[in-house]
Amino acid sequence: MRAAVMRGGELMVDDVPEPTPTTGQVLVRTLACGICGSDLHALRHGDQFVAMAHETVAATPDSPLVPEIMDLAHDVVMGHEFCAEVVALGPNVDNCNEGDIVVSMPAVLDVNGIHPLGYSNRYPGGYGELMVLSDPLALKVPNALDARRAALTEPMAVGLHAVNKSRIRPNMSAVVLGCGPIGLAVIAALRLHGIGHVVAADLSPTRRSLATTMGATTAVDPREEPAVDAWRRDPARGPLVIFEAVGVPGMIDEAMRSAPRDTHIVVVGVCMVPDTIRPMRGITRELSMQFVLGYDPLEFADTLRHIAEGELDAGSLITSSVDLAGVPGAFEALTDPDANAKILVEP
Amino acid sequence: MRAAVMRGGELMVDDVPEPTPTTGQVLVRTLACGICGSDLHALRHGDQFVAMAHETVAATPDSPLVPEIMDLAHDVVMGHEFCAEVVALGPNVDNCNEGDIVVSMPAVLDVNGIHPLGYSNRYPGGYGELMVLSDPLALKVPNALDARRAALTEPMAVGLHAVNKSRIRPNMSAVVLGCGPIGLAVIAALRLHGIGHVVAADLSPTRRSLATTMGATTAVDPREEPAVDAWRRDPARGPLVIFEAVGVPGMIDEAMRSAPRDTHIVVVGVCMVPDTIRPMRGITRELSMQFVLGYDPLEFADTLRHIAEGELDAGSLITSSVDLAGVPGAFEALTDPDANAKILVEP
Repeated sequence: MRAAVMRGGELMVDDVPEPTPTTGQVLVRTLACGICGSDLHALRHGDQFVAMAHETVAATPDSPLVPEIMDLAHDVVMGHEFCAEVVALGPNVDNCNEGDIVVSMPAVLDVNGIHPLGYSNRYPGGYGELMVLSDPLALKVPNALDARRAALTEPMAVGLHAVNKSRIRPNMSAVVLGCGPIGLAVIAALRLHGIGHVVAADLSPTRRSLATTMGATTAVDPREEPAVDAWRRDPARGPLVIFEAVGVPGMIDEAMRSAPRDTHIVVVGVCMVPDTIRPMRGITRELSMQFVLGYDPLEFADTLRHIAEGELDAGSLITSSVDLAGVPGAFEALTDPDANAKILVEP
Repeated sequence: MRAAVMRGGELMVDDVPEPTPTTGQVLVRTLACGICGSDLHALRHGDQFVAMAHETVAATPDSPLVPEIMDLAHDVVMGHEFCAEVVALGPNVDNCNEGDIVVSMPAVLDVNGIHPLGYSNRYPGGYGELMVLSDPLALKVPNALDARRAALTEPMAVGLHAVNKSRIRPNMSAVVLGCGPIGLAVIAALRLHGIGHVVAADLSPTRRSLATTMGATTAVDPREEPAVDAWRRDPARGPLVIFEAVGVPGMIDEAMRSAPRDTHIVVVGVCMVPDTIRPMRGITRELSMQFVLGYDPLEFADTLRHIAEGELDAGSLITSSVDLAGVPGAFEALTDPDANAKILVEP
């Protein structure tokens, strides 16, 4: 089958072996797959990505499921934000039927353990024509929701999880630093949680406009007005939670610098490289910080339902789509934040 | 009066003007005053200390009380962990009487605002023979508790506050990195909270021995066994809270590196300089972090009561005492962590 393959630190389109479903698995045809910022990170900082995965496994020796960690010396077909159609069933499948349109958390279980779909050498992700999914993890897409919006279940679930972990309540305010897809998913989830006061900040006018569409009450250019200043001048403001969704060095320290006393900072932006903070900023104002990753199965299923019921506006995130041949170019295009939010791959 | 004065970045013993109590204030004679690590920081990194204070005030423009920020171009008599005897009353005093033995949160109120005792140009701290205290903030020392142990109310309250803010519960475990006075105060407070599993780590055998005295169940040399490894090999371990009480660059990242998934890290060690962390360590394990500072008035009063009732072992922290002439030498001695925990000044 055709796929966009990560090979030797480069992204190229080539033929790769078709995956075969074993017991409890189904074969699916990829309909749509979002390009995630983590994939750009993995391509650019692959060694750090892999080293951190090994460290995480070493730090959690009691974990019952040891995940596969990709080997960059072999091919990886990335893509973990997908919607797909079931085209064949492996043995012992009782959830899916042929023709079902499904989404799934990006993980495949087999006798060897758990494999992160999109960062695995054994199972290709959504930048290929075909994938294998674990039958019990597949969720049927309801309400005739189109595959393009269903594919955004994964990044929207990241936003929902970040807001759930933040312990924000309706009388509180939020500042969202960075309005890429994850920042926008956070804004949508804040709106779903009934947060009435959300200040978004981004350098890009396109992204600020999207932030307003997704539910931000104010969107500022931080070069003109820092987000916390915009929060402070609103007489309706409540206690503050800052969501750091930029993920570049210096942003955590900048959030700490601007934060008023007792602010909770949720770090959802993925900064792959070492970063400098001034701990005294945290100490003098008793800041707290929550790092977040992913979502749990219930949050993933909730997100799909919210999108299908029109309560989470996933469609507005999609700014363009490409076929497999367009994937390397799309990775390039995503380095310009003003041109794109979410690019979908439709193989 | 005689005092150990911070002047031009040096500590020297000299005569300074006696303070005079105004309305609602009392004049006290210092009986004992602990030397705090923050004072060593302030002497060494004074400019950073002051810059951070200005930044904190700027970040909290809504605060009703604007604190005085010391000017390093003028004299400062440090010392904020004290016990003192009331020797004269200013106007409108209704709490203290002459002869009372008291402790106080290190802050003085007057018509100009709030002054941090020990970091003020206007009010000398406990490294001088006399101080002025705010009458309403003075707490009478009960149970004929001796002044030396009462003087430790302040650092012990820091430990109690850190544990209160950590949300640790009796079925959980704690790792305390660093067994200086604050780490030891944290250990004592953990014991008070009924935490049955406390692993302490310090390079110094003297401090490890003190940690065990204060209630640590295990004390490790981190060069021989990392504290989290010692936690992990105990079958009675519960979910983990790590208290970072070293306060030197690299320790927060080291705590993040060793932490298992969902660990809460309480940063109570004061690192004055920029520090490097790897945010991915936090993200991949969904770590959370709470920076803490000081205590509230209730925690301060609780701590005094716990010390007086023998429930918090403040006395074991005291390793030596000096007179005013010995203060500069004591600052030098405290750079050797194996020789001393808490040195008291007895003017």
